[in-house]
Amino acid sequence: MIDLLATEKELISRHIIPGGVCADFTMGNGHDTLWLSRAVGETGKVYAFDVQQAALDSTARLLKEENAHDNVTLILDSHHNAANYIKEPICVGMFNLGWLPGGDKSITTLRETTLPAVETAIQLLAPGGGILLAVYPGHEEGRIEGELITEYLSTLNRKQICCSKLQIVNSPTSPFFFLIEKK
Amino acid sequence: MIDLLATEKELISRHIIPGGVCADFTMGNGHDTLWLSRAVGETGKVYAFDVQQAALDSTARLLKEENAHDNVTLILDSHHNAANYIKEPICVGMFNLGWLPGGDKSITTLRETTLPAVETAIQLLAPGGGILLAVYPGHEEGRIEGELITEYLSTLNRKQICCSKLQIVNSPTSPFFFLIEKK
Repeated sequence: MIDLLATEKELISRHIIPGGVCADFTMGNGHDTLWLSRAVGETGKVYAFDVQQAALDSTARLLKEENAHDNVTLILDSHHNAANYIKEPICVGMFNLGWLPGGDKSITTLRETTLPAVETAIQLLAPGGGILLAVYPGHEEGRIEGELITEYLSTLNRKQICCSKLQIVNSPTSPFFFLIEKK
Repeated sequence: MIDLLATEKELISRHIIPGGVCADFTMGNGHDTLWLSRAVGETGKVYAFDVQQAALDSTARLLKEENAHDNVTLILDSHHNAANYIKEPICVGMFNLGWLPGGDKSITTLRETTLPAVETAIQLLAPGGGILLAVYPGHEEGRIEGELITEYLSTLNRKQICCSKLQIVNSPTSPFFFLIEKK
């Protein structure tokens, strides 16, 4: 079955620039980091953030196993500090909110840092660039994050940025997506 | 600028089967009818519905001007009677709710017929098929239609059908879309 959830990579792919700079703001096990690394190619650059050393370790392992390009910088810090590390405009940013898959489920991305991180990502975004943000409303923290993000994005100027929301209306606990596109 | 609104045709394109049967449930000026006619090709079939003779006239003119395939049946009847005309499963259905562009703005698709029409369309949908539904919340009737449809689609069994909603959160009067995909 083809459904909306299968389109997330398609939607963000259109903003990828070969040789461009990208950011994986929620590294986790590194699957999006690897995907971005391949998408921008060896002349591109990917910054990936996580607050857990376990995430950096498993991502480093994945990149090695998959013979990824040497274009990834793994950063042990909260994504809301991204502007301390990224000095170029980014063409694509990805957020996969919630916990590290297979990791400690009590450590979720905190809503106190998620919103500042999204704001930072938008500031770093190049014109024509896009941010894909996945929210997991199946747990309480994810549900609240989703509401706060919807509220925040609703305030942004439509002339400068287009904030789309994609959700499955007959499956309220399924992940949903925001696509944030700068003009 | 690339934004979500540009993706509607992409999203439904994946359900098009060359030689398949499609329906344009809200013919209007016939732009979607023409698009469907080309998409399924000359061995396919398109049924198009409208309650206004003006819609049939301008669609017939458009199809002729554009040398469309002879695969379109124009029907002067409400879309909620579609099952009286369509006897085969459809791969794609399209709804563009609201008024005929450039026509009499007091004649909107009535909410009393929109929901039965959507139900009929879902019944006619082949497994793997998809329905794209555009809602225009900028006028009151459109806003109510959107709410009723969201409510109705929320009740459908996720195991049989996936109902996605795509909207621009920082532009509440912009059109939004439902993508209804049968498994």
